[in-house]
Amino acid sequence: MLLPYLTTQAYNDAHLAAHQREFRFLSESLQEKQVDVERLLEKLAGFQVAIPSWALGTGGTRFGRFPAGGEPRNLEEKMHDVALLDRIARCCGSISLHIPWDIPSDSKAIRSLANDLELRFDAVNSNTFQDQPGQALSYRYGSLSHVDGAVRKQAIEHNLEVVRYGADLGTDVLSLWLSDGSNFPGQNNISGALERTQDSLAAIYKEMPGEFRMFIEYKPFEPNFYATVIPDWGTAYLLAERTGDRASVLVDLGHHLPNTNIEQIVATVLSTGKLGGFHFNDSKYADDDLTTGSIRPYQLFLIFHELVSGLNKKKLPLSSLGWMIDASHNIKDPLEDLLQALEAIQLALLQALIVDTDALNAAQVSNDPAGAGEILYDAFRRDLRPILAEYRLRKGGALSPIQFFREHGLRNELIKQRGKKALATGL
Amino acid sequence: MLLPYLTTQAYNDAHLAAHQREFRFLSESLQEKQVDVERLLEKLAGFQVAIPSWALGTGGTRFGRFPAGGEPRNLEEKMHDVALLDRIARCCGSISLHIPWDIPSDSKAIRSLANDLELRFDAVNSNTFQDQPGQALSYRYGSLSHVDGAVRKQAIEHNLEVVRYGADLGTDVLSLWLSDGSNFPGQNNISGALERTQDSLAAIYKEMPGEFRMFIEYKPFEPNFYATVIPDWGTAYLLAERTGDRASVLVDLGHHLPNTNIEQIVATVLSTGKLGGFHFNDSKYADDDLTTGSIRPYQLFLIFHELVSGLNKKKLPLSSLGWMIDASHNIKDPLEDLLQALEAIQLALLQALIVDTDALNAAQVSNDPAGAGEILYDAFRRDLRPILAEYRLRKGGALSPIQFFREHGLRNELIKQRGKKALATGL
Amino acid sequence: MLLPYLTTQAYNDAHLAAHQREFRFLSESLQEKQVDVERLLEKLAGFQVAIPSWALGTGGTRFGRFPAGGEPRNLEEKMHDVALLDRIARCCGSISLHIPWDIPSDSKAIRSLANDLELRFDAVNSNTFQDQPGQALSYRYGSLSHVDGAVRKQAIEHNLEVVRYGADLGTDVLSLWLSDGSNFPGQNNISGALERTQDSLAAIYKEMPGEFRMFIEYKPFEPNFYATVIPDWGTAYLLAERTGDRASVLVDLGHHLPNTNIEQIVATVLSTGKLGGFHFNDSKYADDDLTTGSIRPYQLFLIFHELVSGLNKKKLPLSSLGWMIDASHNIKDPLEDLLQALEAIQLALLQALIVDTDALNAAQVSNDPAGAGEILYDAFRRDLRPILAEYRLRKGGALSPIQFFREHGLRNELIKQRGKKALATGL
Amino acid sequence: MLLPYLTTQAYNDAHLAAHQREFRFLSESLQEKQVDVERLLEKLAGFQVAIPSWALGTGGTRFGRFPAGGEPRNLEEKMHDVALLDRIARCCGSISLHIPWDIPSDSKAIRSLANDLELRFDAVNSNTFQDQPGQALSYRYGSLSHVDGAVRKQAIEHNLEVVRYGADLGTDVLSLWLSDGSNFPGQNNISGALERTQDSLAAIYKEMPGEFRMFIEYKPFEPNFYATVIPDWGTAYLLAERTGDRASVLVDLGHHLPNTNIEQIVATVLSTGKLGGFHFNDSKYADDDLTTGSIRPYQLFLIFHELVSGLNKKKLPLSSLGWMIDASHNIKDPLEDLLQALEAIQLALLQALIVDTDALNAAQVSNDPAGAGEILYDAFRRDLRPILAEYRLRKGGALSPIQFFREHGLRNELIKQRGKKALATGL
Repeated sequence: MLLPYLTTQAYNDAHLAAHQREFRFLSESLQEKQVDVERLLEKLAGFQVAIPSWALGTGGTRFGRFPAGGEPRNLEEKMHDVALLDRIARCCGSISLHIPWDIPSDSKAIRSLANDLELRFDAVNSNTFQDQPGQALSYRYGSLSHVDGAVRKQAIEHNLEVVRYGADLGTDVLSLWLSDGSNFPGQNNISGALERTQDSLAAIYKEMPGEFRMFIEYKPFEPNFYATVIPDWGTAYLLAERTGDRASVLVDLGHHLPNTNIEQIVATVLSTGKLGGFHFNDSKYADDDLTTGSIRPYQLFLIFHELVSGLNKKKLPLSSLGWMIDASHNIKDPLEDLLQALEAIQLALLQALIVDTDALNAAQVSNDPAGAGEILYDAFRRDLRPILAEYRLRKGGALSPIQFFREHGLRNELIKQRGKKALATGL
Repeated sequence: MLLPYLTTQAYNDAHLAAHQREFRFLSESLQEKQVDVERLLEKLAGFQVAIPSWALGTGGTRFGRFPAGGEPRNLEEKMHDVALLDRIARCCGSISLHIPWDIPSDSKAIRSLANDLELRFDAVNSNTFQDQPGQALSYRYGSLSHVDGAVRKQAIEHNLEVVRYGADLGTDVLSLWLSDGSNFPGQNNISGALERTQDSLAAIYKEMPGEFRMFIEYKPFEPNFYATVIPDWGTAYLLAERTGDRASVLVDLGHHLPNTNIEQIVATVLSTGKLGGFHFNDSKYADDDLTTGSIRPYQLFLIFHELVSGLNKKKLPLSSLGWMIDASHNIKDPLEDLLQALEAIQLALLQALIVDTDALNAAQVSNDPAGAGEILYDAFRRDLRPILAEYRLRKGGALSPIQFFREHGLRNELIKQRGKKALATGL
Repeated sequence: MLLPYLTTQAYNDAHLAAHQREFRFLSESLQEKQVDVERLLEKLAGFQVAIPSWALGTGGTRFGRFPAGGEPRNLEEKMHDVALLDRIARCCGSISLHIPWDIPSDSKAIRSLANDLELRFDAVNSNTFQDQPGQALSYRYGSLSHVDGAVRKQAIEHNLEVVRYGADLGTDVLSLWLSDGSNFPGQNNISGALERTQDSLAAIYKEMPGEFRMFIEYKPFEPNFYATVIPDWGTAYLLAERTGDRASVLVDLGHHLPNTNIEQIVATVLSTGKLGGFHFNDSKYADDDLTTGSIRPYQLFLIFHELVSGLNKKKLPLSSLGWMIDASHNIKDPLEDLLQALEAIQLALLQALIVDTDALNAAQVSNDPAGAGEILYDAFRRDLRPILAEYRLRKGGALSPIQFFREHGLRNELIKQRGKKALATGL
Repeated sequence: MLLPYLTTQAYNDAHLAAHQREFRFLSESLQEKQVDVERLLEKLAGFQVAIPSWALGTGGTRFGRFPAGGEPRNLEEKMHDVALLDRIARCCGSISLHIPWDIPSDSKAIRSLANDLELRFDAVNSNTFQDQPGQALSYRYGSLSHVDGAVRKQAIEHNLEVVRYGADLGTDVLSLWLSDGSNFPGQNNISGALERTQDSLAAIYKEMPGEFRMFIEYKPFEPNFYATVIPDWGTAYLLAERTGDRASVLVDLGHHLPNTNIEQIVATVLSTGKLGGFHFNDSKYADDDLTTGSIRPYQLFLIFHELVSGLNKKKLPLSSLGWMIDASHNIKDPLEDLLQALEAIQLALLQALIVDTDALNAAQVSNDPAGAGEILYDAFRRDLRPILAEYRLRKGGALSPIQFFREHGLRNELIKQRGKKALATGL
């Protein structure tokens, strides 16, 4: 039996009474605050987070990797895992492919499988931060920014190949993280590398199909430790601005210097119309790629507060941005990790949605920071988990994802199917 | 009429029904989780947070200060404000004095006023980071660590004077933050400065009354920007260890380098038996001294989780540590700021108290980080505000502190009494 | 006697022989490397660093200030101090005024004094981060970004007044640091504050005389500790881009998050044509405002490397950017501090000028980071102080500025003239 | 021909005249400052830096690795490379082994080879941060701190095995970096993990031969991203203190939070008598493992200033501490990278040695930070490379290491011997 077709009915029935009691009480409390719970449930339905194909196996650090077993061995099994997650959580019905870790050579068969699994394809991701076996020229010293035009050409071609794979699968976004940079002062001509990158992006952009969009990601360091070519939102914005209307900035939560006010970046880029996509994870020190919401849940709420406000101001739906989880599952079961992340993300969205906007505006206009704080606290401190449970219940998912996953022994099931030593491609 | 004597009865009555509905529902939910709400209420009663005398007026930065009016003009009015806060929040019935900003010259009268206001005196704080008018020797280049023995002697004398004031008022803790350090490489002999500090602390310790304890605070930078003499917990611990049994470490939340795991420091120092006191505030960048809980509420919960666990392990009550708020109220009404801080602190404590310890231990012993995460999330995401409200209700405080403060126009009342231009001593 | 007219002749004569021996040896060594020392001396002559009027007295922190005596009591004495510095160091013949700390009410007299002292006026700086006595509306909650149009108008008017003072004195640059922001999440509508700032800048820009330029400074935090309206170069760039051709970005070395690659920002903004000015200082933790070069001299060299490369690429002279020292002299004699900063700045410039550009380009083109490193090390490790000394010698300055300042007892002279308690306006 | 036996004579002869001119001039200049150059040369001879066996191949990040060819394929070839380095630089005649990457199974043969190559064995390093093929129990959830006693026992046994290998080779230091920790709040009982680590260290210590010392390294994060068991010097100090007299703290330059004052830690730990060893590298963001001196050379000088001062105070020689380079050579030739690091380290030492200690003490005692700064600047800005060259000349090394390495085509020679695809064990 394919796990995605498993049913949650029995599980939900067993916990229904308790859920209903909590949901009813919360609904009434919110109603008194003029919050329309049905509208929240609709918003949830319109908010889907993509799962990347490389997030389904154990991740690692430069010091090692400790696989746990039952990892998907190929693209089909990865799609299976995403479908399984969506069956449980009902908010992640799309997969984001990373080329060349997951090449959909037989696109027709893959599309057909996706159809069976009720999956869509999200942004496709290129990779020029590693050398692949048999690759003609090395990315040791860069790719799109390389001093050698032949290497740049190879990297441009790779990106266009990724676009073609994406087009075949029905997606229209190229997501581009460029690890190019330098480890030492003097290694690169900094402005020269930026110019060459600009030219390479233009070359890719020109050849993309007309409907394709390009997300440009930034990151301050790692794997380069002196100067990354696209280190911050300002540089990504400059490049997107110069590349074209369909080029925009992608924000990855872990790609910031210590103490950065990420929600402000989100608000600013969103206000320029150049915010394209979003990668979720959490971190305490660097690009730690921990479970979203596991370290700074209040920051996540504040980010969603800016996202919701900014999109409302522009009258755009949540789906106008690209949402994806991008984390590394070094010691948790990857599927449990993703279920926890999805819960944290949806909770933060819900909290943002119940902020009393009128009262907040009034507090802001009257310079009342203590009052504004009370309004945000009231949204954040409220326990909105019953709404998430209700959403999943109505959509056929599981009232409590992790509990369901465990009670049904799903990891053991996967290990049984795939073996203890199965390893996924990826980092 | 003195504000501390105002009654909350009418206010609470008006909001009683709504509160009771929420409290009852929450109690039942917790009961199902085997959480004893009455025990939580008892714990709250045993947890009191001191208010420092310098936190009752507008704070500022080196760039300026924007006073808002109605600030207390003398120690008596500061005591009045703390009593007012405690009347509302019922968890802050003590005041921590800062000498020489607030010198209790007539200790008998002050003690009598405290008695009237039902206030106790918490730790006394010395100040050698400023020069006072008429002071013989300057602290420009340090105090307890100064190269000149005469300056050190003056600073030691000042600390002993502070101890005497404290003893007169019935407290037994000297809280010592040493801003000494250097702004430039080479300015100080680093190990020499540490040795002199060690000697100065020993000299103070030797002269303190036998029951007096000494809290040693650490801080990495500001007002010195190259090397502070006591920059981190390790140095404070070394000094406390060498000074004596009644010397211990004081943790101020804002006194850490970026990304520091503060809860781990708390756990480690607590395990050595050398954790003395705690200063609450919040920050995003440096020692920002923002409202506790306004930036990183989850971290605050994790800190309380370690505090509660560590004290339980040693079978010590919460009151065995010194708790104080130490923040700067630059743009909020100081009293509102403190009320928000108290609420955030108590909430974090409650969240820590409802952590399912047995389940967490089981998850830890079976290496189940996802499971451990679920247990912490369950404690943190639960909305425990009704328990706080109930606590205040039973103690005669206000169901909703900020709302009560505002509805009763208490700031206007204070401005009326003290004037728009009243300025408190302090930073 | 006015100190600026003191002569360095006797001092230099006494140290001439030693200097000449060192200068000759260095010149020969450089000549072997094809470095033209006379060209370096010319470059030095074309590189002048402004001194701000507020840097001539003792600075402080929010915890206190320890004045040292002899500080200038008025604008005239500040100009005197700058002229004195320039007489010694011959690279700082201009003063940058800060309004309202130093209002040149009688511009004719001030201009005449400047003429006598051979001083020019550099950028004028506005101040909306403090309230001045008698000010109609408060900047407690912002100025150019304030929610209230009347406050914004007052701040715009202030900036235009500053421009008028500047125009009267013959300068054509308005330097604008906006401290506006929020201390707490929710306090401000982030994108709204940015839009209002944009509008205010446009209003100022429109009214400035046609030749006036506007430098827009950014800073991540302090005095606001949650979100500053212009926190990073990206935001300053956005604003400058939208404001007009004569608006550009000002980089202050201390205004960055931990670990920021400042030289990369310099290279990037310079490449866009939007780099306007530069504020020198050094720091270890935050905006510490320490002596330039006292903490990270290699970073300073790398920054100058980017400045020199970027300007060369655009065939622009060093003087096309605005250079100023912006530091706080908390515990050093302000004039000595400035002399040390000037020496460090000029040294870093010289090091950047002797980088073997052809060899570096070759190393970059052949992806040779170790080779590129050797080239930078060779420039940085060389002791170029004799060239600075020679420059000063030829221009009539002092061979060794600090030594000269001390041997001539200049601070005592100033204390004698102004008194031990003289205090300068400023922070 | 084995490369270590190559001769530098011809190379040095060709550059001798230029060197002598520079060395003579520098010697005279220093003599005027009362600096005895011969004493500096002696100090250099007494300062040897170990090379770790894992630093001779290409390093990588979690995102990939780009090998460059000619890497040593076994322990013998690694020893060869170290001997080659020492032949050129004459300051690195010892190798530090990492078990199990380099197991000296035939210790007699290895000792004999070491004898031939004039190499000594430095500290031995254990590894419990990876699982080795065939390992009974996994370190996925820790090793010395693991909740399961069986895993702890395995890790203890491994460390003792490492000690035995070390003893066989004639070394007497076990260097222990413990990567144990947690990625998520709640995963570990923080104080429990510390206690178990304490017990494990005691178990190892008890079984080590009587002359063996134990260096305990700390690191704040990576590969664990929430809480590392030994995150800071304070914790390492606590553990060393409790473990025994022969246990001490090891400082790795890259293992600190942003903005940490490392030189102060060095001074403090040295003053307690618990500083054991030192790992050199450089970094801008995290544990970047870049070439020592490539990012913060002034900090390196300040660290050596504290080391030299602290050792002088205790009348201990430089050799009383363990010195090692610990860097990752991701894009530079590893041998060139090490040669650059050695040069930077020796330069910093020389700069520290010429600090005018008497003058500095005088400046410190008279609270003269500007004067103290001048003294440090004078040491740091002086170009001391000719002394290093002279040292190498006298010892038979190469006047200019990198240049010599390149002119003799040594990497090509290694590639010829070992092949383009040779890969070293390690990260």
